[in-house]
Amino acid sequence: MPGFAFQRVAVVGPGLLGGSIGLALRAMKNPPEVRAWARRQETLELLRERGCADAVGGDLPAIIDGADLIVLATPVGAMLDLAGKIAACPGFSKDAVVTDMGSVKQCVVEDLERVFRSAGRGRFVGSHPMAGSEKAGVGAAHAELFAGAVCLLTPTEATDPAALVAVENFWNALGMSTRRLAADVHDREMARISHLPHLTAAALVMATVDEAASNAELAGRGFRDSTRIASGQPGMWTEILLENRAAVAAELRGLQEQLGETLAFLENVNEGDLHRFLAEAKRRRDMFGAPSSSAAAASLEEE
Amino acid sequence: MPGFAFQRVAVVGPGLLGGSIGLALRAMKNPPEVRAWARRQETLELLRERGCADAVGGDLPAIIDGADLIVLATPVGAMLDLAGKIAACPGFSKDAVVTDMGSVKQCVVEDLERVFRSAGRGRFVGSHPMAGSEKAGVGAAHAELFAGAVCLLTPTEATDPAALVAVENFWNALGMSTRRLAADVHDREMARISHLPHLTAAALVMATVDEAASNAELAGRGFRDSTRIASGQPGMWTEILLENRAAVAAELRGLQEQLGETLAFLENVNEGDLHRFLAEAKRRRDMFGAPSSSAAAASLEEE
Repeated sequence: MPGFAFQRVAVVGPGLLGGSIGLALRAMKNPPEVRAWARRQETLELLRERGCADAVGGDLPAIIDGADLIVLATPVGAMLDLAGKIAACPGFSKDAVVTDMGSVKQCVVEDLERVFRSAGRGRFVGSHPMAGSEKAGVGAAHAELFAGAVCLLTPTEATDPAALVAVENFWNALGMSTRRLAADVHDREMARISHLPHLTAAALVMATVDEAASNAELAGRGFRDSTRIASGQPGMWTEILLENRAAVAAELRGLQEQLGETLAFLENVNEGDLHRFLAEAKRRRDMFGAPSSSAAAASLEEE
Repeated sequence: MPGFAFQRVAVVGPGLLGGSIGLALRAMKNPPEVRAWARRQETLELLRERGCADAVGGDLPAIIDGADLIVLATPVGAMLDLAGKIAACPGFSKDAVVTDMGSVKQCVVEDLERVFRSAGRGRFVGSHPMAGSEKAGVGAAHAELFAGAVCLLTPTEATDPAALVAVENFWNALGMSTRRLAADVHDREMARISHLPHLTAAALVMATVDEAASNAELAGRGFRDSTRIASGQPGMWTEILLENRAAVAAELRGLQEQLGETLAFLENVNEGDLHRFLAEAKRRRDMFGAPSSSAAAASLEEE
């Protein structure tokens, strides 16, 4: 793969995304050595069973030893602690590139840059591969998960330029296109296009569906599509929403304002303003390209 | 078709749905005669071109003459006036069954029952076939539009029982399953599973997407699916939302309460309650059956 710079990749704490990285790397023409570390015995067995790595183990220093790329695949909340342990591994190379897959970036980038700067070892680059599935865990991993999706990178002034390019080439080798943006811009945009929509879908379900879902058989595709993301993993989403709570809360207040306006349009039977509101929403939504309906089944990408 | 009772069906003011009725009826083994009335010359030509009816014309009394089923296919706002004109047609049979396809029912049923009761002719049954498409107009009509979708009927104490069964058989012959419910329950449930979700999707777009849709390329399937319905026809949705404004406003206030709760969870970093909220939303949403993603592309049903 042109530009692919790594000989030994260590995936730390893999689930769906980490497992899929292993499978995708091992399917390459000249694959690097892939190592995977997990805490739980069950995950280690699943990683072996699925063939996600050449070497699998629960001994972090052994897995990290000599790796030139380390991918942190754990939930965001576990990363700071794990990064500290990695930085303390005797075989952690000074030039090793470290990246993560967290869906919030400002806190992760600040924490992890600090850890590796203090250690004087490791070159950190923040990544957010926007791929996923309704299913979680190594069991759902597959080599094509990243193909065609977008990976966002959040370099800072402290980021090593060569490490940034190497991480971009890494994601490109997995079939992703890459974009760079500032971590705070990333978090605000994710609040807009991912985190607030999730919270809104959940609130919409809670407002319109009773405990027995007695109106389920009346619901058509419109309701199903607009609330599908409310079926996401509550644990994962609780963490994401709280990690990015300032940005999400700001966007949520903006949504409340918009809903307040539409309520006034209804109460005042304000046909002109309601029509203008819906027409402008349609104009903006239409700029997102073709309705996702046909693309949806073909692609599993998800924030 | 067993139970199909009509010999001459007049479709009045067809667009996507009315045109599709004509095509579906004419594809039947022993089709009834299908007539279609439209106001605009362009629509009449399109109806002829697409073969939506055996007879097409702009003279309402000629199209209504001797019809045993009349299907009102216009927007809800045009129905009262049109029903009055139909009731005044000399060839409008005393026993003719009349139904509509409006997506709000309480006002339509009240108005149209009154018109035909005053005329002493016609047996009205309110229908809401829950089928549609992103595309509008006769040009997008197709014979399979109704297949597999649900049609809601809203009989009242004044509804003729034989006419009700005949209309149910009619929709069944087009491939729909039918359900009966009270008009006010219908409107409340539509506010929940169709009208509020539409308004929410529009408000979400207005809150998170700027005028140039500069974050469009960051949006994945989650955002696209949860806002897809915001691309609906503004004119049609303005009318639906205002016709059903009391029920929609009540549901909208309920959504604002739920969003207010989630905002408090974020501001107070209330992990336990946020997790419970998301888990309960997931539990209710999961009762709607499989995520629509795979079904979405196969089916075009939409409220």
